[in-house]
Amino acid sequence: MVVVMASEATESDLDNVVSLVESAGGEAFVSRGVNRTIVGLVGDAERFEALNLGGQHGVVEVVRISAPYKLVSREHHAERSTVHVGGVPIGPGTMTLIAGPCAVETPEQTLEAALMAQSAGATLLRGGAFKPRTSPYAFQGLGEEGLRILADVRAETGMPIVTEVVDARDVELVARYADMLQIGTRNTQNFALLQAVGEAGKPVMIKRGMSGTIEEWLMSAEYVAQRGNLDVVLCERGIRTFEKATRNTLDISAVPVAQRLSHLPVIVDPSHSGGHRDLVLPLTRAAIAIGADGVIIDVHPHPETALCDGPQALVREDLAELTELMRALPPVVGRSLTAPAAAVPA
Amino acid sequence: MVVVMASEATESDLDNVVSLVESAGGEAFVSRGVNRTIVGLVGDAERFEALNLGGQHGVVEVVRISAPYKLVSREHHAERSTVHVGGVPIGPGTMTLIAGPCAVETPEQTLEAALMAQSAGATLLRGGAFKPRTSPYAFQGLGEEGLRILADVRAETGMPIVTEVVDARDVELVARYADMLQIGTRNTQNFALLQAVGEAGKPVMIKRGMSGTIEEWLMSAEYVAQRGNLDVVLCERGIRTFEKATRNTLDISAVPVAQRLSHLPVIVDPSHSGGHRDLVLPLTRAAIAIGADGVIIDVHPHPETALCDGPQALVREDLAELTELMRALPPVVGRSLTAPAAAVPA
Amino acid sequence: MVVVMASEATESDLDNVVSLVESAGGEAFVSRGVNRTIVGLVGDAERFEALNLGGQHGVVEVVRISAPYKLVSREHHAERSTVHVGGVPIGPGTMTLIAGPCAVETPEQTLEAALMAQSAGATLLRGGAFKPRTSPYAFQGLGEEGLRILADVRAETGMPIVTEVVDARDVELVARYADMLQIGTRNTQNFALLQAVGEAGKPVMIKRGMSGTIEEWLMSAEYVAQRGNLDVVLCERGIRTFEKATRNTLDISAVPVAQRLSHLPVIVDPSHSGGHRDLVLPLTRAAIAIGADGVIIDVHPHPETALCDGPQALVREDLAELTELMRALPPVVGRSLTAPAAAVPA
Amino acid sequence: MVVVMASEATESDLDNVVSLVESAGGEAFVSRGVNRTIVGLVGDAERFEALNLGGQHGVVEVVRISAPYKLVSREHHAERSTVHVGGVPIGPGTMTLIAGPCAVETPEQTLEAALMAQSAGATLLRGGAFKPRTSPYAFQGLGEEGLRILADVRAETGMPIVTEVVDARDVELVARYADMLQIGTRNTQNFALLQAVGEAGKPVMIKRGMSGTIEEWLMSAEYVAQRGNLDVVLCERGIRTFEKATRNTLDISAVPVAQRLSHLPVIVDPSHSGGHRDLVLPLTRAAIAIGADGVIIDVHPHPETALCDGPQALVREDLAELTELMRALPPVVGRSLTAPAAAVPA
Repeated sequence: MVVVMASEATESDLDNVVSLVESAGGEAFVSRGVNRTIVGLVGDAERFEALNLGGQHGVVEVVRISAPYKLVSREHHAERSTVHVGGVPIGPGTMTLIAGPCAVETPEQTLEAALMAQSAGATLLRGGAFKPRTSPYAFQGLGEEGLRILADVRAETGMPIVTEVVDARDVELVARYADMLQIGTRNTQNFALLQAVGEAGKPVMIKRGMSGTIEEWLMSAEYVAQRGNLDVVLCERGIRTFEKATRNTLDISAVPVAQRLSHLPVIVDPSHSGGHRDLVLPLTRAAIAIGADGVIIDVHPHPETALCDGPQALVREDLAELTELMRALPPVVGRSLTAPAAAVPA
Repeated sequence: MVVVMASEATESDLDNVVSLVESAGGEAFVSRGVNRTIVGLVGDAERFEALNLGGQHGVVEVVRISAPYKLVSREHHAERSTVHVGGVPIGPGTMTLIAGPCAVETPEQTLEAALMAQSAGATLLRGGAFKPRTSPYAFQGLGEEGLRILADVRAETGMPIVTEVVDARDVELVARYADMLQIGTRNTQNFALLQAVGEAGKPVMIKRGMSGTIEEWLMSAEYVAQRGNLDVVLCERGIRTFEKATRNTLDISAVPVAQRLSHLPVIVDPSHSGGHRDLVLPLTRAAIAIGADGVIIDVHPHPETALCDGPQALVREDLAELTELMRALPPVVGRSLTAPAAAVPA
Repeated sequence: MVVVMASEATESDLDNVVSLVESAGGEAFVSRGVNRTIVGLVGDAERFEALNLGGQHGVVEVVRISAPYKLVSREHHAERSTVHVGGVPIGPGTMTLIAGPCAVETPEQTLEAALMAQSAGATLLRGGAFKPRTSPYAFQGLGEEGLRILADVRAETGMPIVTEVVDARDVELVARYADMLQIGTRNTQNFALLQAVGEAGKPVMIKRGMSGTIEEWLMSAEYVAQRGNLDVVLCERGIRTFEKATRNTLDISAVPVAQRLSHLPVIVDPSHSGGHRDLVLPLTRAAIAIGADGVIIDVHPHPETALCDGPQALVREDLAELTELMRALPPVVGRSLTAPAAAVPA
Repeated sequence: MVVVMASEATESDLDNVVSLVESAGGEAFVSRGVNRTIVGLVGDAERFEALNLGGQHGVVEVVRISAPYKLVSREHHAERSTVHVGGVPIGPGTMTLIAGPCAVETPEQTLEAALMAQSAGATLLRGGAFKPRTSPYAFQGLGEEGLRILADVRAETGMPIVTEVVDARDVELVARYADMLQIGTRNTQNFALLQAVGEAGKPVMIKRGMSGTIEEWLMSAEYVAQRGNLDVVLCERGIRTFEKATRNTLDISAVPVAQRLSHLPVIVDPSHSGGHRDLVLPLTRAAIAIGADGVIIDVHPHPETALCDGPQALVREDLAELTELMRALPPVVGRSLTAPAAAVPA
């Protein structure tokens, strides 16, 4: 059950709702979005019914929700949501291009990649400072040094930053630099990490687990939402199947399915799905055409020397075609390419 | 190894090549396409080298092919092929809409569905007279009576027919009525059936096996090609994965991958992939955007009474949107919707 | 709904039941097993109820069955069945070893393999004369010549023959030689073939589809049973998953699951599951311990020159260990190794 | 490359090796096992060759390893390892039964489950105090209170404890109570957590990821080993496939494959694989027969009220059969059921 508070509701209105729920032996989870605050209830629904929550001051609506995820369900919020990342919207009506290097390696490489991305229409910069790697002997990222590089490139280009966090103990650090925190596919069910980013005060992007069902993905988003953060973006990045011609199998159907089940924005990662440079643009076209709210793409000035996932990065020669498709395709599906953020967040 | 014959090569040129190959202990498989005849060689490549096949009369080219599929490989034929079905092209440059009922039930239902399909831009009519069903107790199709209904509707609408054959013993019968023979997902490795349709003198559409790799799919096409029939269309229809929110997982990446490996046209079946009516149009948009050469869609005038797969059929209310997207989207990717066949084949 | 006839029921008792069912607009499928004849009904259950079928002469029992498979379901036949192949039982209480070469190549190779198999306790000989191969360029089997070799080896060793049939047009031919007809994993949903073997008068072994669910596997068996043949053996041979360290992933749990859902015997193919010689014996141990009714194993006198699947064949050096485990393990799970057939069928 | 130190090597011998490696621009990872200390080298192998590491004081052997995992590879340590947990061995020659409740709920329930487990031959107690749950609204475990209950039950029964840790920040806490730390399937690629348990000074059990390849599983073990802890046990618990008749598909072949690739012990979890009580004993028999070094089983005195995974727990009625199979089956494969620890660790 979810209680939706009025935008003008006061803290004492909220406290009142929480107290009532607790008095009925339940738990109340308060989530504050930009436009509304909602309270998720866990406990005995019949006892909650008796509380007359809908009649309390500051309460707009009380919704019973049959899905196992409550706060992120479209059942309680029919309108699809827009999440703002450093002023850049991700949501219905727009098509947001997020691009940058898979891993931050040097200031020069990061800036070059950012400028490449920006020239093709990207308004958000991706780049990894903490890299989860299958092998303990592989490059694990530059850590805080990488975050500083990203911040410098943001200052120079005006592009807000999306970067991954892999350890709950690093959330505070990463959140000081990042505009959106990314949860990678291997951590989609790292519940301690999900709860930590839920409390970090920054938007969160959750990649789908490589063998995660759509329902499990929404449950991961619910972990974040339950800690008070409704600014969550879902990212489809391919699932693991028997087919080995591609790195993963992009589950393109997951975009409309997730959008029907949840009000959260859904974007697509064509780079990690296909795993080959020559699949990135075709998959990007498919993602836009099916109605994704954004795409996140690897670009690299010198992929042959990349420390991570070079074979799937777009290069300079691809930028003209990327630029053209980001211009031409969104209008055909009733969207416009997202404009740059007016101001760069600190 | 593949020997490509000149368009003006004679039968005796061809016999000469075959004899040489056999003299070297090899086997020669002759495939006659509309524009060229090719000979696939099996045996000891070094002994073939010594035959100077390239210098024989009527031979244009000799190509060594590293892929396990030879005749359908793009290695020996860089240009992508167009297959003509009763005069309707499927191939690069065009976007062909194939639509109709999953199963032929009555003359009225079939005609209604065909007219719905045609109104949305379809130039080929799909419809099943022989239905492979998981349960022996489910409706198995009308058989030859269904084929007659399809032929009548073709006469009335001018739409060539695509229909499935499930038994090698029925190939001759089905080929008398059909303009293109369809091999379903459960028969993709029914090699006896593949060989039979390879000799039937009609174009063939091969659906991908529900757990078939892209390589296996191309090997199935090779079975048909090896029997002399290069007019093969590949159809991606979703693969079986752990995700159960959709009937199958549409492997959209398979379109560009198969087009890069093979010169054959590749189309998409958004109806059987998603298994839900409300996923058909989004998946169709993705298929067109990624560069498919066609789509094949279930439509039904009264899906609530359909004998097969009603939940995934488009209905009358969907036609306006389908029509509009078939008009607007192909030009964005450099294609035009295929025009109707000028004349209806017998 | 299934009608079980008494063992002493006459043909006219049976005709009476069929007529009644048809008079109620239904269809009746008669299946004759060794010990009982049953009639599967398709149509309106409420109208069938009104027929008082249970009160008809020669009828033992009328059973409503909720599973989609009827005749093979354990709901109507709680006791697990034994299938006899040329006098050799496969079923509860025994452990039957079927072994031989993947493909019949020469009389010598087949006899050698059969003697190897027999020395390790095998009582049935496997060997392929018709081989379904992914590539049209691979060895496709010796055809009828292979069947003749198998018959000769049967005459010499006394081992009844299990061999694959891949084309409905060959069923009559293969059934003249074979003691059990094998349906391979690629043909598990080749319904025309299933129906043809259902009418051939010989026991049938159905391998699980490489991406077939257990329910689909039982539905394939139902196709055979519906044509009047209840002598069906199910064979688990590994399913297709993301894991590539083995050729397939042996779904060992499928053995107890299928045995709980169906009364049919269930055996395991450890050779095609693992795809490596050194996995065959460990997987055989697991199959016996979990309660399989038999195992089917590739053996080859000279696997390095095998025309098919050499790497997974057991060789002479493995026979002592195989013999020992076939002796020691079945008793621990309450079974005994099946004894040789007393007489060799023609 | 791995450097194996002599058992009598001194700290200064070790420092010398590390210094040499660093002088050649490489990194050295020191892992101290009970019987030997090894040093994993990362860097330029050719430069390492020039160091004459094999000739240094205290060095037994220098091994080049082609697998991507080094320290856990069987290439550098042909003999299979035994890991001791509170005095109880897990390794070749023995069969160790680990059993207990999925989640610790109350002192009474935990003690009852432990006594049930012990009566059937279990020598290690499993039980979860921190539970990773797909839903944020599900029971998440008792936390430290649960650990205290486990410690009390250990004191009473003498059974060392295996329990899960889900957050790197809790490793120190859990390690104070546990005898073996468990990494669950959702955290198999939570690299921060793997590194933390690698430094905790307690044996670690790593469950296979639900869509993890065998190679990825060994790489996860390598993360732990690289931090100096070679006391790692691998646990196969089923993978995610298309088949939904079981909770997961137990990949029984993974046992011999992982044992051939790695020297680490490999155990099986039949409870979480099958997900049904009636599959637990059959899967246990298969696990023992194939050569697993142990099994880990859910038992519960009152599964109908269990807070977690009740349907898969064995109950009192199952204990006689479990006891009997743990007694009878291991000797058939050359093992004996592990005896209780002589002394209980603090």
